[in-house]
Amino acid sequence: MPTFSVILIEPRYEGNIGSVARVMKNFGFSELILVNPVKLGKEARAMAMHGIDILKNAKKFDNFSAVKEKFDFLIATTSIVGTDRNPLRTPIPLYDLKNALEVEGKIGLVFGRENYGLYNEEIEACDLLVSIPASEEYPTLNLSHSVAILLYEISRQRFENRKKRLKKLRRADLVEKKVLLEKFDSFVDSVHDREQDAKLAKKTFRQLIGRAFISGRESFTLIGLFRRARERIKK
Amino acid sequence: MPTFSVILIEPRYEGNIGSVARVMKNFGFSELILVNPVKLGKEARAMAMHGIDILKNAKKFDNFSAVKEKFDFLIATTSIVGTDRNPLRTPIPLYDLKNALEVEGKIGLVFGRENYGLYNEEIEACDLLVSIPASEEYPTLNLSHSVAILLYEISRQRFENRKKRLKKLRRADLVEKKVLLEKFDSFVDSVHDREQDAKLAKKTFRQLIGRAFISGRESFTLIGLFRRARERIKK
Repeated sequence: MPTFSVILIEPRYEGNIGSVARVMKNFGFSELILVNPVKLGKEARAMAMHGIDILKNAKKFDNFSAVKEKFDFLIATTSIVGTDRNPLRTPIPLYDLKNALEVEGKIGLVFGRENYGLYNEEIEACDLLVSIPASEEYPTLNLSHSVAILLYEISRQRFENRKKRLKKLRRADLVEKKVLLEKFDSFVDSVHDREQDAKLAKKTFRQLIGRAFISGRESFTLIGLFRRARERIKK
Repeated sequence: MPTFSVILIEPRYEGNIGSVARVMKNFGFSELILVNPVKLGKEARAMAMHGIDILKNAKKFDNFSAVKEKFDFLIATTSIVGTDRNPLRTPIPLYDLKNALEVEGKIGLVFGRENYGLYNEEIEACDLLVSIPASEEYPTLNLSHSVAILLYEISRQRFENRKKRLKKLRRADLVEKKVLLEKFDSFVDSVHDREQDAKLAKKTFRQLIGRAFISGRESFTLIGLFRRARERIKK
């Protein structure tokens, strides 16, 4: 799974920077990078609340070039969808970020200036451009709102991906579990002569398997075992 | 489709209220209701930016009871997941809001105080309790961040629902389109003697249908027409 850092380019309002630190803490992110920021004072600290450690540990750089080389993948953000300003790049909507979350490495989320956003050359230095789908009438979100929504969406998609992976895992396991139980039963039948004993053994094993959330690999191992056992008993 | 209003209970920082107005404008929402708010001044207006009309038109009430009766469905928000404070209600994660978006009517999104959230009796007066899944270590978001994420998520789920409906519609249409083209061809064959003419008519009709994104209902109507026509010609 990749790690994410938040990179703010020339933020001018310290309240925003504090708010960003807070929401990073809210969603469990920790590395904040500030490129040529305004001086941080009381207001930034007040807005950071329990994200104060993130604010204090924020790394400061004079320019974006020095930051770029520290990352494997950079995601630029814009509220401008397909205008003259960025004719070279069409942003993908935040809803479709999924694939970017599947890469490995260190990902930087790059946010532009409060009044202007990112310059073209900054966007071009990034690997991907995303925008938060918003009202055409007024798509420009407050800086810390943009960060909040991006971090929320990354958390959400991670959660969905985890859920999907778990489901897939479970499906695979179900098939193997069925085979395992068949092999086990056949093995039991070759072992016990009294039906009562066989029944109890089967029931017990089922309960055990059920409680243990047996994995595919484990099933596979036991299938081999019981199959082999059964063959030996036949001889 | 339901309409959504944002209801802030006793907000104490005017900057937050302005920020909420701005993000409402960003996502195309318009009704803001303030229950016993702090006095609004310059800071609220500055933070509202182009959401200033929403701030100016905000409706003020002395207490929550007067607000409740204006809504068909109230959604309360909390950052506290299953503690002693709200033993009666377990919040659903924001990810699972879907069903609430399928109801009709006037929905109110209720946000509590910056320092305390909602009181138990306020939560109990609502129909549903949601929380934004966040870090266990520090789940309390800034008020305007909570609003921003809720409005973003509602927009996103609306978008997903629309996409799903469109897909369903298209699938149904594909089947009917196929039948329609069969009926049309058979009709054409019964009309034209020269193969060339039949070919052209079929081609033309296909292009027309393709461009027009014909609906299921429209297909159904034309199927009836051509079938009947074909029968008449046979006689």
